[in-house]
Amino acid sequence: MTGAPVYERLAIIGCGLIGSSVARAARARGVVGSIAAHDADADVRARVAKLGLAEAVFDDPRAAVEGADLILLATPPLAIGAVAATLGAHLKPGATITDVGSVKGAVADAFAAVLPGTVFAIPGHPIAGTEKSGPDAGFATLFDGRWAILTPQDRDDAPYAAAVARLTAFWEALGSTVERMDVKHHDLVLAVTSHLPHLIAYNIVGTADDLQEVTRGEVIKFSAGGFRDFTRIAASDPIMWRDVFLANKDAVLEVLGRFNEDLQALSRAIRWGDGEHLQDFFSRTRSIRKSVIEAGQEADEVDFGRHRNDQS
Amino acid sequence: MTGAPVYERLAIIGCGLIGSSVARAARARGVVGSIAAHDADADVRARVAKLGLAEAVFDDPRAAVEGADLILLATPPLAIGAVAATLGAHLKPGATITDVGSVKGAVADAFAAVLPGTVFAIPGHPIAGTEKSGPDAGFATLFDGRWAILTPQDRDDAPYAAAVARLTAFWEALGSTVERMDVKHHDLVLAVTSHLPHLIAYNIVGTADDLQEVTRGEVIKFSAGGFRDFTRIAASDPIMWRDVFLANKDAVLEVLGRFNEDLQALSRAIRWGDGEHLQDFFSRTRSIRKSVIEAGQEADEVDFGRHRNDQS
Repeated sequence: MTGAPVYERLAIIGCGLIGSSVARAARARGVVGSIAAHDADADVRARVAKLGLAEAVFDDPRAAVEGADLILLATPPLAIGAVAATLGAHLKPGATITDVGSVKGAVADAFAAVLPGTVFAIPGHPIAGTEKSGPDAGFATLFDGRWAILTPQDRDDAPYAAAVARLTAFWEALGSTVERMDVKHHDLVLAVTSHLPHLIAYNIVGTADDLQEVTRGEVIKFSAGGFRDFTRIAASDPIMWRDVFLANKDAVLEVLGRFNEDLQALSRAIRWGDGEHLQDFFSRTRSIRKSVIEAGQEADEVDFGRHRNDQS
Repeated sequence: MTGAPVYERLAIIGCGLIGSSVARAARARGVVGSIAAHDADADVRARVAKLGLAEAVFDDPRAAVEGADLILLATPPLAIGAVAATLGAHLKPGATITDVGSVKGAVADAFAAVLPGTVFAIPGHPIAGTEKSGPDAGFATLFDGRWAILTPQDRDDAPYAAAVARLTAFWEALGSTVERMDVKHHDLVLAVTSHLPHLIAYNIVGTADDLQEVTRGEVIKFSAGGFRDFTRIAASDPIMWRDVFLANKDAVLEVLGRFNEDLQALSRAIRWGDGEHLQDFFSRTRSIRKSVIEAGQEADEVDFGRHRNDQS
């Protein structure tokens, strides 16, 4: 980043993996002039201060957003609406407020309901993260080469368009490519590409752990047969994911219903020995992997060592 | 490997990912004196000859096993029994015959039924592989630091014990740690740690691809949210996996039934907004990941780059 910062003052509310990574990335690349931070947890605030992730760390979120040009809400999804309501009256006129939650419907509704007309509300979602959480888990390159989705409000006045363009420039400066999307469509796409995979991973790890005939030690020992990848996903932050499923209930239950139908068909094919059905199904899914690699969504060469050796 | 080879002559029947990796590893480490190879596919045989993976490549499997001290069957699981039946009369007295299939029940039964009493039959299963297949996908370090499971027959005469010890030394020379297991228990453990994860991954990728409201392009574009890991697993060899599910039907349907019960409970918690149930469940699975890493089943440090950046 060269030249002037995209925003003079950034306020980050919620300093976990994503919030602290935004702080690190924005600072490393000179994307903002200064950073004010708040977290509801006193230990996290102390840690953020100690790590030097912000110019100032505030006990009160209302103090943190004072004079900020961009307010980034990085709390668990269900807390976003309440935080926005608390902050509304304290936001600088002309400021932009955004978030990083994995579900956009509830956030868009809350923003529309509780924020004053003097600020620009633009829900957002960087498609990046790890199974780790907390301020120590963040790192400056988390958003590099990733997608960031914005779901702007349904208005096309010039000042709002300018605010969206500026927030786009912010994520681009952090290394991401920005895509705009309709709120409902975002929540359906993410239900498929992220929420359902997490639910399934949590579930399979729980099922394996409950089996009395197979010990946890055996499950772990022989996890290279495919199970291991699921344990990583199922290690993600429980509170965040609780909120995701509650906030995106309709879309998640919809895709889960489809998943269950398909699984019943596979189960039936196994029970009745229908090898043709199984082989056809398994052949079709293979081509999707090829597309994922071609789209550069998988660093096939770079991570070759890992990919080579973990199935059975 | 220094000193004498573990077996003088190795015959490999089936030269895909696993068979060709055994050839490469055995040769690279001097574990066998010479290798004879056969594959049912003429193109694969030509490729094996071209790659120089064996001293001799035979069109007829019966010729390949002539004079062999170790016969390794690395065909798709359901073909193993028929191949063993074909070879029975051509095996050298005192030879050991083993396999690498992911299901052991059917193999153990076939070995007991069709092989002569003059050979030592020891079903086996290296817990290693990738989503790739074919002779070009193999590599010499595939079995390094991996588990290899043997499911010996229920007999404890000294010659058989010596044959098991020798086969153990073979896999150890290839870099693996060997574990002995009861046939039925193996098939249940693998149903949990490998077969169910593959079935679920195939299923979720299929479900995502069928959704009309979300394009394949979108699924791929935003696959970093968790979906991507499933596409890799779902890219595995369709014929091999068809056979695995048909051969291990009972154990797979049993663990699939448990999985479905648990998933219904999670689904119900989402529908009724039971956040406590979700959070409790998601917290419990987190600790299993810790055990996987501690057990060294995941190279957490080495692969940090990959783990860091692929969730949402």
